[in-house]
Amino acid sequence: MRKNLTLGLFGFGCVGQGLYHVLNETHGIKATIKKICIKNPEKSRLLPQEYFTLAKEDILNDPEIDVVVELIDDANAAYQIVRQALQNGKHVVTANKKMLAENLEEIFQLQQQFDRSVLYEGAVCGSIPILRNLEEYYDNDLISGIEGIFNGSTNYILTKVFEERKNYTDALRQAQELGFAESDPSLDVKGFDPKFKLAIAITHAFGVFVKPENILNIGINTISDLDLKFAREKGYGIKLIARAVKTDNQVFGLVAPQFIDAHHPLASVRNEFNAVTVQGAFSEKQLFIGKGAGSYPTGSAVLSDISALTYDYRYEYKKLHQAEDIQYSTRASIESFVRFPHGTKISIQDFEEFQSGYAANGQHYMLGRVSLEKLAEWSRWENVGIILSPEALFVNKPVKSEMLEYTAA
Amino acid sequence: MRKNLTLGLFGFGCVGQGLYHVLNETHGIKATIKKICIKNPEKSRLLPQEYFTLAKEDILNDPEIDVVVELIDDANAAYQIVRQALQNGKHVVTANKKMLAENLEEIFQLQQQFDRSVLYEGAVCGSIPILRNLEEYYDNDLISGIEGIFNGSTNYILTKVFEERKNYTDALRQAQELGFAESDPSLDVKGFDPKFKLAIAITHAFGVFVKPENILNIGINTISDLDLKFAREKGYGIKLIARAVKTDNQVFGLVAPQFIDAHHPLASVRNEFNAVTVQGAFSEKQLFIGKGAGSYPTGSAVLSDISALTYDYRYEYKKLHQAEDIQYSTRASIESFVRFPHGTKISIQDFEEFQSGYAANGQHYMLGRVSLEKLAEWSRWENVGIILSPEALFVNKPVKSEMLEYTAA
Repeated sequence: MRKNLTLGLFGFGCVGQGLYHVLNETHGIKATIKKICIKNPEKSRLLPQEYFTLAKEDILNDPEIDVVVELIDDANAAYQIVRQALQNGKHVVTANKKMLAENLEEIFQLQQQFDRSVLYEGAVCGSIPILRNLEEYYDNDLISGIEGIFNGSTNYILTKVFEERKNYTDALRQAQELGFAESDPSLDVKGFDPKFKLAIAITHAFGVFVKPENILNIGINTISDLDLKFAREKGYGIKLIARAVKTDNQVFGLVAPQFIDAHHPLASVRNEFNAVTVQGAFSEKQLFIGKGAGSYPTGSAVLSDISALTYDYRYEYKKLHQAEDIQYSTRASIESFVRFPHGTKISIQDFEEFQSGYAANGQHYMLGRVSLEKLAEWSRWENVGIILSPEALFVNKPVKSEMLEYTAA
Repeated sequence: MRKNLTLGLFGFGCVGQGLYHVLNETHGIKATIKKICIKNPEKSRLLPQEYFTLAKEDILNDPEIDVVVELIDDANAAYQIVRQALQNGKHVVTANKKMLAENLEEIFQLQQQFDRSVLYEGAVCGSIPILRNLEEYYDNDLISGIEGIFNGSTNYILTKVFEERKNYTDALRQAQELGFAESDPSLDVKGFDPKFKLAIAITHAFGVFVKPENILNIGINTISDLDLKFAREKGYGIKLIARAVKTDNQVFGLVAPQFIDAHHPLASVRNEFNAVTVQGAFSEKQLFIGKGAGSYPTGSAVLSDISALTYDYRYEYKKLHQAEDIQYSTRASIESFVRFPHGTKISIQDFEEFQSGYAANGQHYMLGRVSLEKLAEWSRWENVGIILSPEALFVNKPVKSEMLEYTAA
């Protein structure tokens, strides 16, 4: 028997308004917005004044409200709201990936403690139902890896750069004008946004909690015209790929740009679209493609969560109960294409397995397997560009290879 | 709390053996195969003799068996097994699309009557969790259409024909050798297999039951070298597309080959892969790609259903309860490219909206909007080829257009 739900919203921006419209036009879902907590009373709103409040207690302490829908920007404030809501016996729906990634273990425990549900499908790849599928459908499958395009803004930029031969700055500006990029574009461009999403997905795919600071994120901000030229010559595209792989009870995660060839399943994922590939032992490779952001796609994901609450749905974190021995690790290496100016302290000896090198016009290019530790260090340096090679795979427990000859031209 | 399940299998072919392996290698799922009913006692088996029986009562009347897993070829026998299993208080998992498509309304009613669950994710696009997502995730979304590549064998054949410029007969033989095609290849090639799957998907997407005989299926068996030549000149591929669309409370369905351009989301779905696009009002277009057949992908889907039964999952057929006014209809027309030899009784007047025509070497080619009724009739005629145009959309309540000039060369 479906319940009637009374909702209290925090935030009424793009997603909140999308939710309001989706809820209004959808049949068969029994949920009503009672109150909306906003920060700015001056903004003109599309609903009557009595819907709005500036006091969060008007929602958190209202016993009629069953579900708190948290849609604000500020991750810390959002976490306080989620915690208070659970303590007060309310279920929560949120799309706040940063807040979730930073507090997922605590949120898991709060759900157990207060016997309430927190759902957040909208937080990871917008409209793509990846968490629900990882939880429910791939329950029995031995998932060996997930990878995908978890950020629409950067994918839009990269698509424009390649297809329209735009320069980087123009493409970024255009993305922001169209509203794809977050208010802080560095969250997208430096790969933080997809990293938050990856951290959440890892828990549902592999049953481990990982703090975002333990996942290396390399952005698309250091891509140079030379990299684009190289990619075009080889017939490659560049995509910002979030990935997590399980090998021998260890889970590795990484967000980094990667050269990909035209036959790669993610090559055809263009513009603001997101995509997730799930690699299962038995289901083999499956690809989900959909809109990752925007008021309607995210509003629709949020409403799917609300709808699930009318059936008492909660994430069971099933993998967590199956996965006693599995640990998250950063001890891996991966094949990377590293570009750096002459004088940078990077040498062949830094590579676990050096493949080839080249130098011209004061720039060095080296291709080979590099530990995540080194990549993390180099990614903080000025003027170093890191792009994974097309066939890059994580290699566990890096072993130094024999040195190969480095040809400088 | 998860239940321990005891399984009785009917059939131990490709999918049954896949299931056995997947079950053996999967942690965390509490299900044991107790008995397997087979037809042929002579075949050598990978399990000890005591697992097998020739008598279906050994499973159907065994009170220890909770779940009947039905994996046989014969649709009529399968339906009898499913019915008896439900009557005897057992849940059922099946991947028999023909049996399901032909008896879905009855199976829905039997589930209500005996308070048992029938799950069949493996029946539609193998490993792609499309039914579960239509049921659960798109519950609140207003789905306006689903379309996709629902048959791996024909997609394999069409891929080979286009990419390797193979002739049709060779490609078909190769597909069968690799085990993609059904034992009766006409089920695939003439579009019956994807039609059965579409009939099932329509119920979960739109909440109506439709008998397979009310869905027109046009196969790839009438495609000619001339059509391939035309496609290549235009830069098109040909895919066998299953589609269902809702317009004004009417649902239309069709399986037919279609010219598609390189930017079409389904263009990159190659070889034996299946794909489903879900068009929602709010989630917008989403694409799922995965293996549609084979022992492991289908075995994995079957095991996902078994796993769901350990949580007492059942399809709620939610759309059925929301959709009182919605009806399945065949009163629509769609833009098609029709090829026929001189002397065939097809004329411009048969088109709802005639676009262009051409004749050469005793063959006529006409492009225009045709009613499904006409297409059904023509598809039964010898030597008539029907391929939908790249932008073909269903048009409700066909209206005769003004006649346009027919240019014969």
